[in-house]
Amino acid sequence: MSTLHLNEFSDSANQAIAATRQIVADLHAELPRNDLVAWTAGNVSQRVDLGEDAPEPVPAVFVIKPSGVSYDELTASNMVVCTLDGTKIDDDTSTGLSPSSDTAAHAYVYRHMPAVGGVVHTHSAYATSWAARGEVIPCVLTMMADEFGGDVPVGPFALIGDDSIGRGIVETLQGSRSPAVLMDRHGPFTIGAGAQEAVKAAVLCEEVARTVHLARAYGEPQRIAQHQIDALYARYQNVYGQKDHA
Amino acid sequence: MSTLHLNEFSDSANQAIAATRQIVADLHAELPRNDLVAWTAGNVSQRVDLGEDAPEPVPAVFVIKPSGVSYDELTASNMVVCTLDGTKIDDDTSTGLSPSSDTAAHAYVYRHMPAVGGVVHTHSAYATSWAARGEVIPCVLTMMADEFGGDVPVGPFALIGDDSIGRGIVETLQGSRSPAVLMDRHGPFTIGAGAQEAVKAAVLCEEVARTVHLARAYGEPQRIAQHQIDALYARYQNVYGQKDHA
Amino acid sequence: MSTLHLNEFSDSANQAIAATRQIVADLHAELPRNDLVAWTAGNVSQRVDLGEDAPEPVPAVFVIKPSGVSYDELTASNMVVCTLDGTKIDDDTSTGLSPSSDTAAHAYVYRHMPAVGGVVHTHSAYATSWAARGEVIPCVLTMMADEFGGDVPVGPFALIGDDSIGRGIVETLQGSRSPAVLMDRHGPFTIGAGAQEAVKAAVLCEEVARTVHLARAYGEPQRIAQHQIDALYARYQNVYGQKDHA
Amino acid sequence: MSTLHLNEFSDSANQAIAATRQIVADLHAELPRNDLVAWTAGNVSQRVDLGEDAPEPVPAVFVIKPSGVSYDELTASNMVVCTLDGTKIDDDTSTGLSPSSDTAAHAYVYRHMPAVGGVVHTHSAYATSWAARGEVIPCVLTMMADEFGGDVPVGPFALIGDDSIGRGIVETLQGSRSPAVLMDRHGPFTIGAGAQEAVKAAVLCEEVARTVHLARAYGEPQRIAQHQIDALYARYQNVYGQKDHA
Repeated sequence: MSTLHLNEFSDSANQAIAATRQIVADLHAELPRNDLVAWTAGNVSQRVDLGEDAPEPVPAVFVIKPSGVSYDELTASNMVVCTLDGTKIDDDTSTGLSPSSDTAAHAYVYRHMPAVGGVVHTHSAYATSWAARGEVIPCVLTMMADEFGGDVPVGPFALIGDDSIGRGIVETLQGSRSPAVLMDRHGPFTIGAGAQEAVKAAVLCEEVARTVHLARAYGEPQRIAQHQIDALYARYQNVYGQKDHA
Repeated sequence: MSTLHLNEFSDSANQAIAATRQIVADLHAELPRNDLVAWTAGNVSQRVDLGEDAPEPVPAVFVIKPSGVSYDELTASNMVVCTLDGTKIDDDTSTGLSPSSDTAAHAYVYRHMPAVGGVVHTHSAYATSWAARGEVIPCVLTMMADEFGGDVPVGPFALIGDDSIGRGIVETLQGSRSPAVLMDRHGPFTIGAGAQEAVKAAVLCEEVARTVHLARAYGEPQRIAQHQIDALYARYQNVYGQKDHA
Repeated sequence: MSTLHLNEFSDSANQAIAATRQIVADLHAELPRNDLVAWTAGNVSQRVDLGEDAPEPVPAVFVIKPSGVSYDELTASNMVVCTLDGTKIDDDTSTGLSPSSDTAAHAYVYRHMPAVGGVVHTHSAYATSWAARGEVIPCVLTMMADEFGGDVPVGPFALIGDDSIGRGIVETLQGSRSPAVLMDRHGPFTIGAGAQEAVKAAVLCEEVARTVHLARAYGEPQRIAQHQIDALYARYQNVYGQKDHA
Repeated sequence: MSTLHLNEFSDSANQAIAATRQIVADLHAELPRNDLVAWTAGNVSQRVDLGEDAPEPVPAVFVIKPSGVSYDELTASNMVVCTLDGTKIDDDTSTGLSPSSDTAAHAYVYRHMPAVGGVVHTHSAYATSWAARGEVIPCVLTMMADEFGGDVPVGPFALIGDDSIGRGIVETLQGSRSPAVLMDRHGPFTIGAGAQEAVKAAVLCEEVARTVHLARAYGEPQRIAQHQIDALYARYQNVYGQKDHA
């Protein structure tokens, strides 16, 4: 595929992309604020469905963090726009910046999970400590039943450089109600309808990873019965929060 | 019961409610500040006794956090006012916002513990880790004797959706001097004469949960003798702090 | 002793006391900043030697935190001034505020350790976890040899209300090079030439309590040889820092 | 060597030194911000190659923190400039301030590792807890393979006062791809092409020390296979980040 440039996109596509850049840049601030990342690690992305505004053959793109840039320096204008095969689309503001080194994994998720509109990756310490052991977080808290609908699953060990990580994420999450997967000896990836929901899942994944880590120091907590997990999950998906609130 | 609206209440009742909204909104800031909550979890409420200003049959109401709203967005005006059976009272400012999904538990406490004027619920990590094991925090620190008058007790496992959680809180706290109860595999609830005292109890519950967790890593600390606990508790209730200071 | 009032003191005594109030109020901010205290717990005091300005029989006083007041509300003017027997001296600014409930312990230290000009008490979590077990922190880090000159010792279990706590602090510290003592099932007290040095000792006591707690999770660290501890301590007392820098 | 003064250096040398002072002062703020230091502990330095601007025999100097000064008080003007044998060079701004007590160790590294342009030392708690046991951090996380190219090694126990610490750092790091070494019962030292890279290594060293500490609480994580470590390290050194971004 030859290199695309944003000036080949319609005005309304550019407006949708610009709005998403702001959302993604702002949400990155939640990662250090919630103690999920060190230095420049971690990244957030969000899909932009272009619909009729898409130049063929680009029906959707996604916006992601540039690689190796400090959280203090992230702005809407240095976010990077990519096609769903993970290729950067040129523009006039982020010139010279490469997308996150995890871009291929995000792209794979967007290509294979059409309902996913946001992806987050961190190395948050407690979640990554479960990942280092390759151990599922058991559903022993009502908030886990609410948010994750059961255990937080583990994905395979996979090296960066091809589709292995993306495929591991998708295969694991397609078999689970959980929006979070702990990639073996690597760290958590989370998904959501948009980037905000994926950030929420990343925050709560670390929270439950930490709480269950602490709990089992003095005895194994008892898993909540499956029918009770199901009841809590169903209720939370339907009742919690404000109907028109993200 | 048909839906009430605050414009059916007297001016002095509305003034008391407005003042309480400000107090409850401000106290919510203590929860993230003291690292007791992640994302939108956790909630604070305070009772408003209306006395002669109450329209029959509403002698008291309480003010509580709206459900699923970010801590950054909480203001006096979007706090929700409820009757003691947990039904939202309409108003012109929080229109469209539902009260916290834990409202029924707060309401149950206010109905059954007339001396309680404030309730707090969090999933703070150390306290919740004791709750995950269903294990009482033993009174091994002078500050526990001061503030809790003994061990911090555990309440039953209960599902959201009816009075189970409220009943579990009340039955456990009525048999204890502690203002905090650890609900099994759920998290802590705390009470106080007002919301500020309940927030204080939530902060100190997490503090002692953390300190005793750390202490027993290398040996079980010795419980303080009961007559010494009694002496410390009696002294703290009567001597500590400023007589006219909240 | 009948009640004293600061207006019975000379102008120069009042100036010295006012300057100390500011120092003590400012240093209290270091306690929450360094995560040493929860809610209103913890306190800092500093001695004021009045010399020739002292009205007989008050050759020295000390300035301490008022009891139960929030860290956000502490100012120079609401600090409380006490004689060395722990009695509040009246003034026109802190009227109605009682001194910290730990005032008797601070006073005992000032009466029995003339070289001590500052005292700090906290319930910082790691140091208190060692205190809960009544266990000395072994000198396994060069920074412990530098700052504490050896192990951090444990003092006896003592109830508030008489001289027991103060006596336990003094008897333990007089047999040690350490400026910190862990009072059994209570928490750390630290001393220094002034309040700043005592605050430094409180910060570093928590730091070493935390680091050694973490270290022994996977094996007991080896104590540094006594002659090496002696060499490090001697060097640190004489060489470290700036000669004219507090 | 008789005492040098910066006024013996060329204008361009002074400009290079002034720019480095600002960089080093600013980077010190990353240490408390990333929770790597308590009180005045910890220090950052950066080499200044003077090239043709050097007065003989001073081809290079380095800029380092003054000893025992609070992080809040660090500015470009109170940074201290030293020759590569660790002797302070006089100037008109930092008069009276001594360089960090770890200056000799930094100087030894600069003398013996010509490619090193920045050095950082902290007592960060998790890294120091591994150092207290004298235990290597095993490479069980992809981010360790990326950043450290394998395990984080341990250096010998060495007392301050001569070249022992510097020699221990250099001998350990020359046999490793890791930019971090855990000095036995002391703490981590890190190196980099400049001070920013050394600060990054200090932040990530603490991060991996913490994550692997947590991971092994419930089982030993499996080391990544050597050929996979090699592949990740090679890729990270060549691909990650922006080509023209520090």
